[in-house]
Amino acid sequence: MKTASEQAALAALAAPETEAAASGVRFKDPRIEMAHGAGGKASRRLIEGLFAPLLLRGRLAAPLADAAHLEVDGARIALTADAFVVRPLRFPGGSIGELAVNGTVNDLAVSAARPLALLVTFVIEEGIASGTLEAEVWAMAEAARRAGVEVVGGDTKVVEHGKADGMYITTAGVGRVDPRVRCAASEVRAGDQVLLSGPIGDHGITILLARGDLELEADLRSDTRSVYPMVERLLAAAPDGVRWMRDPTRGGVATALNELARDSRLGIALCEEEIPVRDAVRGACELLGLDPLHIANEGQFLAVVAPEHAAAALAAVRSAPGGEEAVIIGEVRAEPARSVLAAASYGGTRIVDMLVGDPLPRIC
Amino acid sequence: MKTASEQAALAALAAPETEAAASGVRFKDPRIEMAHGAGGKASRRLIEGLFAPLLLRGRLAAPLADAAHLEVDGARIALTADAFVVRPLRFPGGSIGELAVNGTVNDLAVSAARPLALLVTFVIEEGIASGTLEAEVWAMAEAARRAGVEVVGGDTKVVEHGKADGMYITTAGVGRVDPRVRCAASEVRAGDQVLLSGPIGDHGITILLARGDLELEADLRSDTRSVYPMVERLLAAAPDGVRWMRDPTRGGVATALNELARDSRLGIALCEEEIPVRDAVRGACELLGLDPLHIANEGQFLAVVAPEHAAAALAAVRSAPGGEEAVIIGEVRAEPARSVLAAASYGGTRIVDMLVGDPLPRIC
Repeated sequence: MKTASEQAALAALAAPETEAAASGVRFKDPRIEMAHGAGGKASRRLIEGLFAPLLLRGRLAAPLADAAHLEVDGARIALTADAFVVRPLRFPGGSIGELAVNGTVNDLAVSAARPLALLVTFVIEEGIASGTLEAEVWAMAEAARRAGVEVVGGDTKVVEHGKADGMYITTAGVGRVDPRVRCAASEVRAGDQVLLSGPIGDHGITILLARGDLELEADLRSDTRSVYPMVERLLAAAPDGVRWMRDPTRGGVATALNELARDSRLGIALCEEEIPVRDAVRGACELLGLDPLHIANEGQFLAVVAPEHAAAALAAVRSAPGGEEAVIIGEVRAEPARSVLAAASYGGTRIVDMLVGDPLPRIC
Repeated sequence: MKTASEQAALAALAAPETEAAASGVRFKDPRIEMAHGAGGKASRRLIEGLFAPLLLRGRLAAPLADAAHLEVDGARIALTADAFVVRPLRFPGGSIGELAVNGTVNDLAVSAARPLALLVTFVIEEGIASGTLEAEVWAMAEAARRAGVEVVGGDTKVVEHGKADGMYITTAGVGRVDPRVRCAASEVRAGDQVLLSGPIGDHGITILLARGDLELEADLRSDTRSVYPMVERLLAAAPDGVRWMRDPTRGGVATALNELARDSRLGIALCEEEIPVRDAVRGACELLGLDPLHIANEGQFLAVVAPEHAAAALAAVRSAPGGEEAVIIGEVRAEPARSVLAAASYGGTRIVDMLVGDPLPRIC
């Protein structure tokens, strides 16, 4: 419920209703909730209902793509930016700094661009030990070195104690678009194969356990890493055969594939038993009533490949360091359009929906 | 003072001392303070002592430039990113969204690049009214339209109530570098003239008054705007004559010119009475013991121009909308090197230092 003064303030702030209608704004949720940042249905509502009509006017065709492509003096560059607010700052297998580098590198990689340069901005809470910041700067430097990108600039702001939960990091990245590749939901055809680079859910469950809210322990690490070495092998092996790529971070594989189904107007049929999930992830999910397909990953990617290139594509990803467990997890079908279905080994089929709500806030 | 457990944690987090020494890390402040984000001496210590040696390895020559330049397939692009944490979110003459667009546009402009595209990331506090966010998205859309840049992508994260003071916005920008221009501190020569686009201190004092902590009122508005139209005229009139540009935001004109003095190893002699300062700004500064030269601006820029181009440069900036009050405020001299001196009308001369501490936190 809004008070009268809040309503008056809102009326003063927001544009007149007629202008809002003309602009295409249709975001009607009264308040911003955690789910609006979770990468699922509420995020999509915010992006498509508010950001896209006002800010992304020329780019409605692919409002949720991992990176935008731009031409400057004949050069094709990819651009992307992500904010990182993960809690805790450090967790088994990684930290916010490492995540901030790899997350942006991966958004470039799955848009078929070679990651070149990063910009880094910090919002830091007053009073944190300098060693906490220094540890993240080391982590970023090391992740950038491993990923072969250069950090070329950035900015630092400090806010009062309690106002940034340690630190938030935003990284923006620039890449060189591979001219051989045409990757988009609109390129996907019935019969195409869905390739997954490795086990899912490691990152999300690691973060969940690292918070210590649960009486659970598991030998699990975040999968944070650059997926570019795998993407590079894939594109070298089948430049014409790769039709779509995505890194299934917030919202997991289920959300990424639902977005593909919606944007391509096709269906995705998954073979559930082919999807690699570690025992620790499966166990935690069963205990908590979560679907591993909704859990975030930070070092995996999905690719849709033409059927005649599928074997070569799979072999290429498996030949890359870290891609050994890659598998074909399903295929694209004409029907049922705009849906993701998963067939279980015992013969049943279930509808796999996008993430709704935010069961695991602030995982990246 | 650190507790033993904090010290142990720091020792575990930070790299071994020998590694730190080899890396060039020399940032020794024990904790992050507001001043590290204020754009003055402490910011420079953090950037030069920690970020530059670890993250900006190849770019030590110009660690504090407004934008980095990069070549991709023969195209020269400029890249920049800034985080915005201004408090309050809205103030006379602007808001955080407008600032986030103009700030990044201006960093591109003063690096002699035509602003082309922006990426926008939000870190939003759970529970804020959607109208508060919508108002900023409208402000950004309008500022982007006026500045002639396209918003091509971004990201949204939501954190718990109390953890982001409304919202923080980071914008990254890409521009096309003007191939005619060579702008750098190393290009500056004794005898060059220092041009300022208009009155200083409006933004910083507006924010200070908008917080309502002081019993002061004034008819003052933030100067937030794109400076690109003025820069464009300047570069068209004197492409060979412009040797350095900067937008004097955090730390003000004094900090920007001290950085130039340090980086060029030359001195700057200012004629204090030529520097335009509105009465309201001067009055507030006198009352609070602040120097207008330290106050942040969000719609002005400084340019150093070769003496033979100074008249044409000044006329060009004055001919641009909003540049009518541009003036030559001083000149570059060989001595005293690395210093900024200001001559007052009554004959005295004072040393103008960089900003120390943070008298006006979170002004952008």
